[in-house]
Amino acid sequence: MMTISWVQTLELSLPSLNDNTADADRLIHALKSRLGSDNIAMDLDMLKTLPDVMRNANYHIRCILYKDRSGWGISGVLAAKNSSPVLGMAVDLGTTRVVLRLMDLSSGRSISESSFDNPQLVVGPDILTRIHHADSPEGQRHLQNLIVDGLNRLMAELCTSCGFASTDVYLMAIAGNTAMTHLFMGLNPRWIIREPYIPVVNRPGTHRASQLGLLANPCARVFVFPNIGSYFGGDLIAGILYSGLNQREETAILVDVGTNAEVVLGNKNWMIACAGAAGPALEGGAARMGMMAGPGVIDRVAIDPDTLQMDIHTIENLPPVGICGSGLIDLAAHLFLCGMLDIRGKFVASKCRNQLKEIDGIKHLVVVDQKDAAAGCDLSISQADIDSLIRSKAAMYTILETLTASVGMAPRDLTRFYVAGTFGSFINPISAIAIGMIPDLPLNCYQTLGNSSLGGAARILESSELFEEIDRIRDSITYLELNVNQDFMNRFSAAKFLPHTDKSLFPSVNIHELLQDFTP
Amino acid sequence: MMTISWVQTLELSLPSLNDNTADADRLIHALKSRLGSDNIAMDLDMLKTLPDVMRNANYHIRCILYKDRSGWGISGVLAAKNSSPVLGMAVDLGTTRVVLRLMDLSSGRSISESSFDNPQLVVGPDILTRIHHADSPEGQRHLQNLIVDGLNRLMAELCTSCGFASTDVYLMAIAGNTAMTHLFMGLNPRWIIREPYIPVVNRPGTHRASQLGLLANPCARVFVFPNIGSYFGGDLIAGILYSGLNQREETAILVDVGTNAEVVLGNKNWMIACAGAAGPALEGGAARMGMMAGPGVIDRVAIDPDTLQMDIHTIENLPPVGICGSGLIDLAAHLFLCGMLDIRGKFVASKCRNQLKEIDGIKHLVVVDQKDAAAGCDLSISQADIDSLIRSKAAMYTILETLTASVGMAPRDLTRFYVAGTFGSFINPISAIAIGMIPDLPLNCYQTLGNSSLGGAARILESSELFEEIDRIRDSITYLELNVNQDFMNRFSAAKFLPHTDKSLFPSVNIHELLQDFTP
Repeated sequence: MMTISWVQTLELSLPSLNDNTADADRLIHALKSRLGSDNIAMDLDMLKTLPDVMRNANYHIRCILYKDRSGWGISGVLAAKNSSPVLGMAVDLGTTRVVLRLMDLSSGRSISESSFDNPQLVVGPDILTRIHHADSPEGQRHLQNLIVDGLNRLMAELCTSCGFASTDVYLMAIAGNTAMTHLFMGLNPRWIIREPYIPVVNRPGTHRASQLGLLANPCARVFVFPNIGSYFGGDLIAGILYSGLNQREETAILVDVGTNAEVVLGNKNWMIACAGAAGPALEGGAARMGMMAGPGVIDRVAIDPDTLQMDIHTIENLPPVGICGSGLIDLAAHLFLCGMLDIRGKFVASKCRNQLKEIDGIKHLVVVDQKDAAAGCDLSISQADIDSLIRSKAAMYTILETLTASVGMAPRDLTRFYVAGTFGSFINPISAIAIGMIPDLPLNCYQTLGNSSLGGAARILESSELFEEIDRIRDSITYLELNVNQDFMNRFSAAKFLPHTDKSLFPSVNIHELLQDFTP
Repeated sequence: MMTISWVQTLELSLPSLNDNTADADRLIHALKSRLGSDNIAMDLDMLKTLPDVMRNANYHIRCILYKDRSGWGISGVLAAKNSSPVLGMAVDLGTTRVVLRLMDLSSGRSISESSFDNPQLVVGPDILTRIHHADSPEGQRHLQNLIVDGLNRLMAELCTSCGFASTDVYLMAIAGNTAMTHLFMGLNPRWIIREPYIPVVNRPGTHRASQLGLLANPCARVFVFPNIGSYFGGDLIAGILYSGLNQREETAILVDVGTNAEVVLGNKNWMIACAGAAGPALEGGAARMGMMAGPGVIDRVAIDPDTLQMDIHTIENLPPVGICGSGLIDLAAHLFLCGMLDIRGKFVASKCRNQLKEIDGIKHLVVVDQKDAAAGCDLSISQADIDSLIRSKAAMYTILETLTASVGMAPRDLTRFYVAGTFGSFINPISAIAIGMIPDLPLNCYQTLGNSSLGGAARILESSELFEEIDRIRDSITYLELNVNQDFMNRFSAAKFLPHTDKSLFPSVNIHELLQDFTP
């Protein structure tokens, strides 16, 4: 595939009596051979400034391009000698966190990155609350203004900090889940959460930044990633693009772990996807000491198999305030491999000894003694927290099993396992394997992608040739509605053990391997 | 070619858990099979209202379409049971007069028509004055506001008079010359009149009405006809479309007569065009008694060959105030055939007798005696006026000769001669042949088209399938720059006689035929 930059430098033939082609058509004609396309649009605003720009540049220009579904478009024309920057902005529009990456559209290189809490958090932390808030037109507008204002603020900050201006941004690529995308675009999200769960649009396409209220260049365009439904959004399509799963010969799987587990299985010829509730245990909130990653949060845990002494690591090494998903998975894996949890995930009293307490009739295991905890009281994990984690991990494994089975594979047949999302990056795969959350594959099969949503959005800004690939990805995905039938329930029941009722599926992991990996 | 109406009624499948396609994509998918195209755009404003419209209509809708160069677009979605009208507006954007035709987009039928003086006349009657006025941004905005406000006013009047509203208008098609088009769109016309005469754009395309300041439906689109240069505008492209010249097997010619003579020769396979100054004699202003058609203006003249008595017809039968182009041509033809003008176009004193006067050393022929004239003084035509007419008619014939010669034809080889433009409709072809302005073809070869610019614009609103034909016409025209070389000058000199130095070219016309045609 030929790499075509979003910024093209052109030296046009000068107009003459023998060639009186209009300015716009002259430019489009020159681009036509460069781009190999006849379909190049230019809107009214561009036409208004074009004659002066062309003449001042003596027809030697830089032309800034965008694409939409129907072809190419021109969003800027500058004199070639004009050295002002031409920027792009990739956006991961997260429910909780929004990340922006500033790019150089000429070279496709990243310049800088910044993030902020989604300002819609003031309305509610979860999607559901926000969608209900959007039931009134005022509420919907309120949510749109919050995110658009936030984006404008951070975009200006990020540009300024690099010595640029927001108006230097000509192209943006935005990847978010279906609900966040709707709220950002001012589209009614009402039907996303009501049966049969219909978004307003699957392929939002490319729009003028100004129409979306974004204070980039007045002619800038914004590409919004498509979704394949209310529960499989543009963030995941961007993630697939970023992983490269869509271009591999061999079948691979991509898992985005969070409150929902979104899973894609496939290769360059086909893709199958599903999304299911993986349970709240993994993203904080459910376990009483569970919380989202942040300063003081326990993100890694080890247990000495001889002394059963706990060794914890907190983010920024602050006194512990709680535990996040990756810490919880570590903890469960170590507890199990040290014999403190049995295969049903129940605390083994003889092993847990004085760490085990009973509060309101429910067993709790003290993880951090009150003297070491930030709040001055014990940080403990309850049997209910562990049960919840086990349901989550069982749900995850069952989804993987169901999806692979649907194409005649088993989870262990996979040779490549992409873990997407920031949360996924922090999970220790050995721990996750130890509790039977993910299949027992050689560790080099696992590849964490980090913020793959942002990564995918940025890929689009690097150069133009992946643009059509996005729709191809979207259109080649078969969405598998997870039918919670008897088959699924049987699989789920079998997966609710540590690591699984069928131990032969998880032969490799042991406590020593886990400990080797733990370096607090 | 299949006729596809701009308004499509669709009964969509209802969303369900088994078919959770988004509202927008559901609509586009259904249109796709209807239109045979994958390329259907829908913008943000449409997306915002779509979910409610779809649900209130129970997915049984009327969908209003437009086209641009890259494909189809949707400019409106109404419930099928909603009976509100869906209108189109065709506009002939003349330098002097602007004509609007209201259409029913569902049926493609015309509803009503109205016209107004181009409000830019307050700046100046001619294109040149207006382009100079547009040298400052304020001047340019002023001219744009004048025409846009005028269009909005008349559009509202026309709609209201038919019981509709401007917001019922979803699609407009505008045909005008290159300068008028630029001024209307707010594009800088500066370079149109400066060598090498470069328009801002040849193919303006389709725009949002709101972006152009037009108060039609907020989602309405406006298609602006393309030009092939500063001196061959969208009005002529529309005229070609209306004439059907572009679809004929046999070669035909289309002539738009005015201050400029614009001529197109060709058939469905090729077209060649040129534009040249036909002289001011034909559109009033030059002859001292010459003026544009209007009440009291002499538009037809006859002379009794025996008594040499003049018989005149004025518009609305009012006392004569002057003479317009068609009247002047009649007059010259009759004067010549009665022997009052010689073949050089000079007054023959022996025949003109006491009608001939000398004023400031120049011979004048009294056409209307002071007692019959509106102003109470003689209406006369000077030798200079006749000379000017003869230069004009010679220029016209020379252009026709040059254009046909360029493809190895002669004017008399033509079997179809389209006369475009309102002015052309009023010329008596027998008179025009008699003075050698147009070739001596059988009268049934001549076909007057009336306002072919408006006609072409209206054709586009009748149904969608001619849309691509417009660009095909534009692109298949070879523009012949009229080289005023020795060859041209020789032809011009030969044509400066009545009817021509080569009388064999005009064998058929005589005074009796002319008189038969004259019924004041």
